[in-house]
Amino acid sequence: MRKDVYVIWFTGISGSGKTTVAMETAKEFKSRNIPFEYLDGDIVRNFFEGDLGYSRKERILNVRRIAFAAELLAEHGINVLVANIAPYYEVRDFIRRKIPNYIQIFLDASLEKVMERDVKGHYKKFKAGTMSSLIGVDDDYERPRNPDLTLHTDKETVVETTEKVIKFLKDKGIF
Amino acid sequence: MRKDVYVIWFTGISGSGKTTVAMETAKEFKSRNIPFEYLDGDIVRNFFEGDLGYSRKERILNVRRIAFAAELLAEHGINVLVANIAPYYEVRDFIRRKIPNYIQIFLDASLEKVMERDVKGHYKKFKAGTMSSLIGVDDDYERPRNPDLTLHTDKETVVETTEKVIKFLKDKGIF
Repeated sequence: MRKDVYVIWFTGISGSGKTTVAMETAKEFKSRNIPFEYLDGDIVRNFFEGDLGYSRKERILNVRRIAFAAELLAEHGINVLVANIAPYYEVRDFIRRKIPNYIQIFLDASLEKVMERDVKGHYKKFKAGTMSSLIGVDDDYERPRNPDLTLHTDKETVVETTEKVIKFLKDKGIF
Repeated sequence: MRKDVYVIWFTGISGSGKTTVAMETAKEFKSRNIPFEYLDGDIVRNFFEGDLGYSRKERILNVRRIAFAAELLAEHGINVLVANIAPYYEVRDFIRRKIPNYIQIFLDASLEKVMERDVKGHYKKFKAGTMSSLIGVDDDYERPRNPDLTLHTDKETVVETTEKVIKFLKDKGIF
């Protein structure tokens, strides 16, 4: 794998801002004409037509198949931005093991704050009993131990967070 | 997806020559400096560390994740050669639906002949009772209805078969 090509994975609980921050980062790649692919839960679910549910095993399979595609793209010089919860040590270890140039960005936001914002309405659905297997609530989100970058998305604006990502990518030599 | 970039999928029962023919085709891409990726069962199994077995459901999941990676690579201008059994209509229909520039190459070889050759020793293992879920024997291989190219690998040499693939790719404008 080329040393200047990366798989940048945004992890964090539902509502922590993964999609928003990853999409803002994607704009930066685009404006710099750096080859990239952007993948998030909706894109993946759409391709696979919702074939996997939300059990631990299925979530792991889902993360793994994203990792497979991401690794291959990176092998061919395409940076990959992934906005995906990847909630377990086991599966993040898999990504780390399989993708040499993997960057883990942890969007650290308190459950209270994301429940309050509830961008996608997941927490409301959960309280109403129409949704289960909500990571961070009735299913574990195993907090990253050694993320390459941690962003406190519950305490800063999207612009502030994105600036931190850009600075990080500049320090890495990607931008 | 660029019109001149393809996902070329070699399907056929175990021992029909998928890997051999796909690898020979890969050499042709390489010698022409056309960007490509080559994927086969061993490569995929190795990446995923053998996490899926051989049930119908698991085989489908395995084909789908290859299709996902292949589609993304093709979006970025990388042709993809896949040597994978993809035994069911259902999953080949999925590939066709999801990948605009999909070429299906059917390696048609009689079970008698591949059992006789038994390149990987699968059929011997099956007879000895140490292997099950062998597609074409105790699990169905659903014969492709409308392959883009059919090759009778039990009646011709690898060189002859490969020449037919090259001719096909030339006619398609890929070579």
